[in-house]
Amino acid sequence: MERLKKQMEFILELDKLKKIQRQTYLRDESRQENDAEHSWHLALMAILLSEYANEPVDTLKVIEMVLIHDAVEIDAGDTYAYDEKGNESKREREEKAANRIFSILPKEQGERFMKLWLEFEEGTSSEARFANVLDKIQPMMLNDATNGRAWREHQVKETQIRKRHDATPQGSLKLWEYADELIKRNVEKGNIIKE
Amino acid sequence: MERLKKQMEFILELDKLKKIQRQTYLRDESRQENDAEHSWHLALMAILLSEYANEPVDTLKVIEMVLIHDAVEIDAGDTYAYDEKGNESKREREEKAANRIFSILPKEQGERFMKLWLEFEEGTSSEARFANVLDKIQPMMLNDATNGRAWREHQVKETQIRKRHDATPQGSLKLWEYADELIKRNVEKGNIIKE
Repeated sequence: MERLKKQMEFILELDKLKKIQRQTYLRDESRQENDAEHSWHLALMAILLSEYANEPVDTLKVIEMVLIHDAVEIDAGDTYAYDEKGNESKREREEKAANRIFSILPKEQGERFMKLWLEFEEGTSSEARFANVLDKIQPMMLNDATNGRAWREHQVKETQIRKRHDATPQGSLKLWEYADELIKRNVEKGNIIKE
Repeated sequence: MERLKKQMEFILELDKLKKIQRQTYLRDESRQENDAEHSWHLALMAILLSEYANEPVDTLKVIEMVLIHDAVEIDAGDTYAYDEKGNESKREREEKAANRIFSILPKEQGERFMKLWLEFEEGTSSEARFANVLDKIQPMMLNDATNGRAWREHQVKETQIRKRHDATPQGSLKLWEYADELIKRNVEKGNIIKE
């Protein structure tokens, strides 16, 4: 029972992700989504869209990555993609968080999650590269569906978005094609600032 | 692009699950959780707790089931576990919903999700039996962590909970042991009505 107790404690700890608000709005614009909802959405996308990964991927591994990729935000908070100052200290804050949170688990499960999280952060496997594509495409899809609400609120520029998508073509050419078309359309609409 | 368009339309349609409120409270009791958050939590549990399934399970399949098991509630709504009247018409409402929602997808993906959903509903595979255990254990864990809040609000009786857990020992003896201990503790505290 000692092992199960640790696992349940971790599962309860991660309940906090339901309270970590992101900048992206739900499709109906009623509110912003949270990390748990975002992670569920990514996992669903992993099932349906893995066929578009450039390299073969183990779908289960992609799902594991996206389900836990934001766990560190329980301590480190959500850093908005285009918050330059926040992103400078992000990695240090997140590593500290990962150490605390994953060590709640039985040793080998905690080490496995730490490894998956680092792999995701560093994009060092085909699964990590594809998981990162999904993590960038999902908010873009919702921004597009809400007439660019979060982009407009933050006055995001085309160059910023394109820089953020630097690695997307390496993960999936097909999904990059989708993203590129979506960026162009939203620049035209004035939802993204042309520069 | 036609195929990807259908997939993205489905992924956007499922955004609605973030708006379907359940009876279970978050651990901090600030509000009730929604279907997307619940499904994410189940997927996380599937990764960590599959070792306790009585029969060998394909973890990816368990995760696929739990990620989409509540999709039907977009049309049919959430029926509270102990709402007798609601549960009478539940299956019919949900089948209609499944037909509409899964048919948004490319044909073979829609058919696969329909099959997974039916399998989950009917408990006709080791994965479905284990997914059902998780679906029943997760709200129980949160009810326990919130001093029985949802149970107390609905004046739930021990016999009702035990009936709902009828199939849990078939899915996982170990998790049934956890659930049984948790029920006893909450009956003692007065969170669940002894009968």
